[in-house]
Amino acid sequence: MKNTMRVTEELAKFACKLTYHKLPREAVGWAKDAILDCTGVALAGSQEEAGKIMADYAKKTAAKPEAGVMASGFKTTAAEAALANGTMAHALDYDDYALPNWTGHPTAPIWPAIFSLGQRQKISGKDLLLAYVVGFEVGARVGAYLGRGHYESGWHPTATYGTMGATAACCSILKLDVTRTRSAFGIASSEASGVRQNFGTMTKPLHCGLSSRNGIVAALLAEKGFTADVDAIEGTFGFGKVFLANGDCDPARSLKGLGKSYMIVEHGISVKPYPCCAEAHRCLDAILFLIQKHDIKADDVESVECRTSDMVPAIMIRHRPKTVEEAKFSMEYCMAVALLDREAGLQQFTEERVRERKVQKLLTRVHYLHLPEHSGYANMERYPERVTVKLKNGETYAQEVLTNKGKPGNRLSREELIAKYTACAEEAIPRKRIDRSLEMLDRLETLDNVGKLMDVLCA
Amino acid sequence: MKNTMRVTEELAKFACKLTYHKLPREAVGWAKDAILDCTGVALAGSQEEAGKIMADYAKKTAAKPEAGVMASGFKTTAAEAALANGTMAHALDYDDYALPNWTGHPTAPIWPAIFSLGQRQKISGKDLLLAYVVGFEVGARVGAYLGRGHYESGWHPTATYGTMGATAACCSILKLDVTRTRSAFGIASSEASGVRQNFGTMTKPLHCGLSSRNGIVAALLAEKGFTADVDAIEGTFGFGKVFLANGDCDPARSLKGLGKSYMIVEHGISVKPYPCCAEAHRCLDAILFLIQKHDIKADDVESVECRTSDMVPAIMIRHRPKTVEEAKFSMEYCMAVALLDREAGLQQFTEERVRERKVQKLLTRVHYLHLPEHSGYANMERYPERVTVKLKNGETYAQEVLTNKGKPGNRLSREELIAKYTACAEEAIPRKRIDRSLEMLDRLETLDNVGKLMDVLCA
Repeated sequence: MKNTMRVTEELAKFACKLTYHKLPREAVGWAKDAILDCTGVALAGSQEEAGKIMADYAKKTAAKPEAGVMASGFKTTAAEAALANGTMAHALDYDDYALPNWTGHPTAPIWPAIFSLGQRQKISGKDLLLAYVVGFEVGARVGAYLGRGHYESGWHPTATYGTMGATAACCSILKLDVTRTRSAFGIASSEASGVRQNFGTMTKPLHCGLSSRNGIVAALLAEKGFTADVDAIEGTFGFGKVFLANGDCDPARSLKGLGKSYMIVEHGISVKPYPCCAEAHRCLDAILFLIQKHDIKADDVESVECRTSDMVPAIMIRHRPKTVEEAKFSMEYCMAVALLDREAGLQQFTEERVRERKVQKLLTRVHYLHLPEHSGYANMERYPERVTVKLKNGETYAQEVLTNKGKPGNRLSREELIAKYTACAEEAIPRKRIDRSLEMLDRLETLDNVGKLMDVLCA
Repeated sequence: MKNTMRVTEELAKFACKLTYHKLPREAVGWAKDAILDCTGVALAGSQEEAGKIMADYAKKTAAKPEAGVMASGFKTTAAEAALANGTMAHALDYDDYALPNWTGHPTAPIWPAIFSLGQRQKISGKDLLLAYVVGFEVGARVGAYLGRGHYESGWHPTATYGTMGATAACCSILKLDVTRTRSAFGIASSEASGVRQNFGTMTKPLHCGLSSRNGIVAALLAEKGFTADVDAIEGTFGFGKVFLANGDCDPARSLKGLGKSYMIVEHGISVKPYPCCAEAHRCLDAILFLIQKHDIKADDVESVECRTSDMVPAIMIRHRPKTVEEAKFSMEYCMAVALLDREAGLQQFTEERVRERKVQKLLTRVHYLHLPEHSGYANMERYPERVTVKLKNGETYAQEVLTNKGKPGNRLSREELIAKYTACAEEAIPRKRIDRSLEMLDRLETLDNVGKLMDVLCA
């Protein structure tokens, strides 16, 4: 069975043949929410140092004005714009994530590709939503092909699956045929990269810029007849082989129900209420609950214990953060700043805040506890995490959380989504353009040209 | 020992501190020959379909005119120019290769980066040669860090080590400090990719364009203060971890003699006399020798047997080639066309030639033989290969070759190098510019601005 399933060809056929009108209503709903959320966090990300460097880099290319760069007042080629916009989308680590197949962020590596190439091609809102779903599904199914071993070996699936998803989305926008889409997957297989060692640095957000740009380049070259192996995902020395060292790729899991069931509907998307690594979110829910309930003051805290899987500190690898990028990958910082500020929003993750002596001192009081029965990646979603706050007066409070806020089982309300968008957008563009963009995002499926929305976002 | 050796930091220090005047004379000699050879094959490659598509792609970006595209009459950003020039440099698979550490092509992924960024920065010929040696050494030492397992698992080291080498070379050109060079290696670790599945397609040459462009982007971003992990090569989830699944990286082998001995001197570079995969070259030497010696006519041939390591057909994976890219990775085609034409030069590797019925018929008479004692990658350089030609009249001729023409032990003469350059350049630029470029390449170390050479090559 394994050898006869042509994953590349099947995914290419899916990407080429799907139309907007075939999309389930729920898929469109998830896509609209994801696009709204990612647009907001990208606007906020445009004001981060990583975003500013990329905008400056893109501006200096002085290339053909095909697509805008978020809140930056200029256009460049779709590929260069996507490199900048993608870095902005992931700069705050505030963008959405999806489990189990994506094992990471589905929208930040795709959204910049479809907005940038979409503006170049003057596509409609319907075609944008279609491209998003194509990209999400292909990324998820490439993820299902590889499984968790890919992440465990050090790869950042957001970057690697993201490149394949972005490529599929771009092929959909360019309306490539099956053969050229297969070539695009072949090109993308030789572009995909991104290592977890860069977590907690500007290069993690860059991964989303690279994925989007790579997807655009792969699709544009394939459109011109540039050739690549047409079975690159499952080929002997292809994507699956190099990106899953144990060789245990699963074509049946990848292709199950393709075109009939949608992973975006089946598994949903998680929207982040806090701008930091998702692995901190359960403990953040827990500690914020405890702070409110018991009116805990930071000065009174003796210690904080986070009972998590032993894999959490292998992802949140920065235990003594000195920069804001590191702070987002530090459970110690997240707990400390939540205790001090009683919230964990954009204001809690700034360079100034990270450097403050008070938070640096408090974070040394935060410790992990790992139970052997919770160990391993497979158990991460299975057991609740527990935060125990011990006060200097001896009092102890504990709270467990299994399904953190933002997960499909505990979704943000429409109002919360819009509040998050507004707070993010306020960092970058004036009120009038926020309202105008919200109005267009709300009726995205009726937009005749996504370039109009891009003009509002990028001016 | 392993854990205390900081490979990234040591390689960064080497890249930052090396100066032209510290280079051994032999290193400069190898570098000049390599640059001459790669310039020629890139000019010829500019006329290949892959080269033309990339030139068209680069031209349409209409970006800032920083660097020229070979024989194409326009400039674009250094990064975009390198993407096109790199694809051209490897389009014919006629560019040099280096063993054992590079396990592939050292110059095609670096040459475009240093010429394109060098033109942007108006560097001298001396600084160009310095950057080349820095790039060669870093690529080779990253290769020594990983070892052969990297290639065996499906990666194309030309692309992956090439990205690291190109990055080092670009950091040298931009005169970055050690910290920024380490960041550049971190960024490059998340850019590097390239799968062997794309051998025999246009995407294999694209790998060299990607490596060069990635190196330029990594260095330019690091120059702007963009951050990445500063120990990315040896870090827990870094370059070594993801690109060598068995985890058997060897820092001591990587850093041995760094700054004192030069791998470019120790191991040399092999220049190709035939524009096809190097794994065909021993058998090509053998069959061309037999054809001359015994005046063999193709029509009289019953069969050809190539006794090689069993790894050769795992690299030359195209057994029934239909395109010129596939033909370059087909031992069957190489033997057949050599029998028909009595040579194996540029004219033997064209779309028209590959499609001809006569060669397609003859290549079915070519077979492999593998002896168990020659099996495995480790034995590839250890035993001679043998070609046995059996004629229809029953006569049989055989010839063995261990060190094929072009290898450091069997180098091309100065005259042969210039003849190859001239034949390649004639495909792309007029005689006057060939002579002018040859004159400048001959005195490269005295050139005050490599942009002048680029103008001759690219106009």
